[in-house]
Formats: sequence, structure tokens, C-alpha cells
Amino acid sequence: MTGIFIGVDVGGTKVLAVEVGADGGVISTARRSVRKPTIRRAGSRPQRAVQVGPRAVAAAEDALDGAVREVAAGRDIAGVGVSLAGLVDQSGQRVRYATHLPWRYDDVRQRLSERWRVPVVLENDANCAAVAEAAYGAAVGVSSCLVVTVGTGIGGAILIGGQLVRGANGMAGEFGHHQVVPGGLSCECGLSGCWEQYASGNALERVARVALGSHLDGPEVAAAALAGDSVAQEAFVAVGTWLGVGLANFVSVLDPSVVIIGGGVSQVGDLILEPARAALARSVYASSYRTLPPILAAAAGPAAGAVGAALLARRAGESARGA
Amino acid sequence: MTGIFIGVDVGGTKVLAVEVGADGGVISTARRSVRKPTIRRAGSRPQRAVQVGPRAVAAAEDALDGAVREVAAGRDIAGVGVSLAGLVDQSGQRVRYATHLPWRYDDVRQRLSERWRVPVVLENDANCAAVAEAAYGAAVGVSSCLVVTVGTGIGGAILIGGQLVRGANGMAGEFGHHQVVPGGLSCECGLSGCWEQYASGNALERVARVALGSHLDGPEVAAAALAGDSVAQEAFVAVGTWLGVGLANFVSVLDPSVVIIGGGVSQVGDLILEPARAALARSVYASSYRTLPPILAAAAGPAAGAVGAALLARRAGESARGA
Repeated sequence: MTGIFIGVDVGGTKVLAVEVGADGGVISTARRSVRKPTIRRAGSRPQRAVQVGPRAVAAAEDALDGAVREVAAGRDIAGVGVSLAGLVDQSGQRVRYATHLPWRYDDVRQRLSERWRVPVVLENDANCAAVAEAAYGAAVGVSSCLVVTVGTGIGGAILIGGQLVRGANGMAGEFGHHQVVPGGLSCECGLSGCWEQYASGNALERVARVALGSHLDGPEVAAAALAGDSVAQEAFVAVGTWLGVGLANFVSVLDPSVVIIGGGVSQVGDLILEPARAALARSVYASSYRTLPPILAAAAGPAAGAVGAALLARRAGESARGA
Repeated sequence: MTGIFIGVDVGGTKVLAVEVGADGGVISTARRSVRKPTIRRAGSRPQRAVQVGPRAVAAAEDALDGAVREVAAGRDIAGVGVSLAGLVDQSGQRVRYATHLPWRYDDVRQRLSERWRVPVVLENDANCAAVAEAAYGAAVGVSSCLVVTVGTGIGGAILIGGQLVRGANGMAGEFGHHQVVPGGLSCECGLSGCWEQYASGNALERVARVALGSHLDGPEVAAAALAGDSVAQEAFVAVGTWLGVGLANFVSVLDPSVVIIGGGVSQVGDLILEPARAALARSVYASSYRTLPPILAAAAGPAAGAVGAALLARRAGESARGA
């Protein structure tokens, strides 16, 4: 097999492309900006929205292409993995919906594959991050784990026997939208009482806004908490407790060996993980009959999505060669 | 391989033993009563409780032994599978807790294996029922499914790629104790707001008692509903709606191909399944982006636990022979 394997992670503000070696190590990286245009509506804070349509698709894919070609630097490419926030279908051919990209029910795999003339793997970003955790992070050698990414919202992935559980629609691992409060807070997804309204970065900002009387974003609340501000710390306790209550549901049902918490909000470490552990222990079924899974911080680093995508591309290549 | 494979299911009132052929078909059966003694406490309804201790263990295992020997009728036994309500440890050696039997942190597999001089497989009854559903019931050829048994409480099992998900403690599939209402109804397990307080046979009796002003047990409510009593039918709508709300959580997270509902309460069929389907469609994440799994009635029949246990014993035997 000749050529290199590249993973690309598409986030809200940037495209990160990485070349990954056989051992999962990052050899080189490239970045491109994909900042969404700001939309200002009367009476609400400015929001960044995804523009859709053929021109937006072409611009987004040019950004991806630029990052991939910069990493390749003229060398042959053997395969590319693309990690994205959103819904990839079960076959990995089509993107149903992408949070930061204009892909809507779009046969992205074939188009990118023709553009680069190599096999392309598409995968949800939390699933890619979980692959990286299993390869060299907090899930190495673990028989089953839940990976929960706590950022603005909550994403997630399930690994059993080292394999991703993808689901009948490719949509397994959507922990954030299980209902923790009947008739509770309205969620952007259209439902109400979703876990991510209580245990995510958005929830943290809401709790902090009420407690502090002023708007701080998640990183500002985190900085205040790490600097010892007790009100900011209490906000993490509130959110961490809801995190543990929701985790208890999945520990009761899936009984994983390990739970891994990633995403931006988790970077405060035990400030959020300790209340989550306490709430899990109080809320899980038959706690006296089981060994509780440890709740660990993600360890695969901020490039986990891109690296996981590259590893999936490499495995697909090896599997095709073996077939 | 000589000898027959036998499965034994231990319920609240009887032991059912079956001989199962290579195709999963039941060749012969035997029953033993294991009725628990009735305990009368002042001010509460008489309850049946499990007596524990060495004499109770010996009596229970004699009942198992009697049923197994009656089915064997003097022929060689190649393996026995035991299906029980309760918690079997990850290795399948020990029973941590059994709902209807005096086994408590008990190395049951070794003792029964020595008694019968054959390999013994121990498994949770919902897991055994799921194996039967996959072999000849509603889960044949299905890539992933949830089996939810709605009886007095709620049990369950998860099958992915035809394999049982057993979990790190052997406790996966305990759907009944995920929390659907924070600070909700107290549960026998010590938690509050557990799903089985809202969507089980006990919940049905509670709803019917309030609506009808008199006590009916689950089968009586079912008979009234099937006879057209609108109040009894409304009780099934209430319970079925909670059933669908909880199922939505697991469909959002596990994205199964199929959901199978078994257990006594499910025998009313669409009276409970239709409200569950409607609530699932309303409550699941991203319903417009996915194909919803069908909610099907269990099809493996009342001997599913015993047959599934026998199939597990047969597979263990074949696997040992192949090794």
C-alpha cells in the first residue's frame, strides 16, 4: 500500500487536517478557516449560521481540499477520513445533516472520493474521537466504553469490543437528546427536557448567567472556576451533577467498563467530573451489586476527531487490501 | 457430541425445563412448583417473599434438578442453561442476586455443574428471551435490537450483530431503572423516578386503581381492556405512552433496527404498543432524519427464557468442542 492516510476534522471555525502514521501518531497538520457568516436578528445575540446551496458546498469543500493537499504536499494519498459534527448515514455514503457544513442529504463520499481519487470515509466527530481514544487515549484495551463529548451540546459514541456501535441509521451515540426532565427546557432539536439542556456548555452558561447576573461564555466560566471563584465552581457542580444523572441511565443500561468525558467543557477536569461521579454513584441501578465504571477525562487530545478519521481511513484501506 | 441440551427457566411460581433440538424446537418439557411462602404483614396486602439460607437453596435446587431429570428421562445430558430473573456476574459463574431464588453472591454454576456433571450456563432471563427471539422469534436476521420485557417490572436485553451485550458487570439491559422523572415515584430498587414505576404491570395496576377506584391486577385490567372497557383501555394508553417515552431514550442512543416488547403486559398487543409507537415518534431525537425502528410484540412464546437458556448451553457446548 503506497500513499499516506489523512484525517480531516470540520469544526465550527476551522478545518484541521492531519497525516497519521501506522501507530496513530500525527506526522503533519494543516488548518483552514471555515468561519460561518454572522447573522444578526433583532432582539437576539448575533449568531453564526450555516449557509447552504451549491456555492456554499463548493467553498466548504475547497477549504477541505486545501487542508488535505497542504498536508499531502504532493505525495500520494492512500485514503482520507472526514470527521464532522452531524449525521452520517449507516453506509457512510451520505451526510444527512452537518452542523457546521452545508451538506444536507448529500452524497459527499462519492464526490470527495472522485475529487481526490482515493477512498473516503465519513464519520461523526464523536465516533472519530472515540476511535482515537481506543487507539491511544483513555479507552486503550477497554472492553466497552461510552465516550461523551460535552461542548456547546453533548455528542457521544459507544464502543463495544473495540468496535463502534453505529446503529441502524448510523445515529447511535446521540446521548445529548435523551430526555431527563419530562416537559423540561426546550431544546434546539425540537424536543424538550433533553440532557444537553442541563449538562452541556450551553447549560453552564445559563447557570452562570443566573448566578452571576452577567453573561460569561463557557471558557470564561471555566477560567473563573479554575481561579477559585466559588460561584463559577458551583455552576460546574450543577452541570456536573446533571451529567452524572444522565450517565447513570446509560451505565444502568449498557454497563460499560469505562466512561470517557471529552469536549471543551471537560477541560476543567475534576471540577465537573467529581460532581458527575457522585451523581452517578447515587443514581445508578444496583450500585451495591456492580463495580462502577470510572469516569475519565478524554486523553486523545484536541486532534482526536481528525486522527480518528485518519485511523478509520487506514483500517478501511487495510481491510480492502486484505479482501 | 452426545447427550441432550436442556434449558430451565425459574420464575416466580414455577420452574420450566425444556429439551431443545438443534433447530431450537422444543422436544419435551417439565414443570416444578417453586411458590414462595406468603408473608402477611399488618396493614399491607399479603406478599410472597424469597426465603434465603442453605435449606432454601437446597429446596430450590432440588426443584431445578427434578425438572431437569424429568426432561432427561435417563438420557445423557450434554449441557444445561439456567434462565433466571436477577443479576448474573460477567463471567457467568456467580449469581449476585436472584428475584425468585435464594441465591445471593452464590457460585451457582460450579455447584450445579458438579451436581449434573455437565457444563452449565447461567443467564438473566431477559437475555435468554432475547436469544430465543433472535433464533426463531421477532429478531431473526436483525442487525441490532432491544428486547424489553414488561411484566411486574421491566427487564431487557440488547443484541448487536446477533450477540448479547452483557456489560462489564454482566448487568447490561437493565432498562427498567433508568430515570424518567427526577424525584419521581419511589422504586423498590431504592432509586426514584425509575421507568418501571411508570411503564410496567405495577404502573398499570396503579393507574387502573386510581381510575377505577378498586383493585384489579394486571391480567384483570387486560381482560377488561380487551372486552372494550374504555377506562381500562385508557390505563394501557397511559402506560404505553410512558413506555414509548422511555424507548425514545434508547432509540436515540442505540439506534436499533427493531424494538421487541415481551412480558405479560405486552400480551394485549396494540392496546399498549400503539400508544408506545406514537410516543416514540414524538419523543425520539431527529425523527425526520431516521427510519424509526418498528416496535414489535415478542414472538418466541412463553418458553422463550428456557429455550434461550438451552440454546446458550448448546452454543457453549459447540464452542468448547470446536476449541
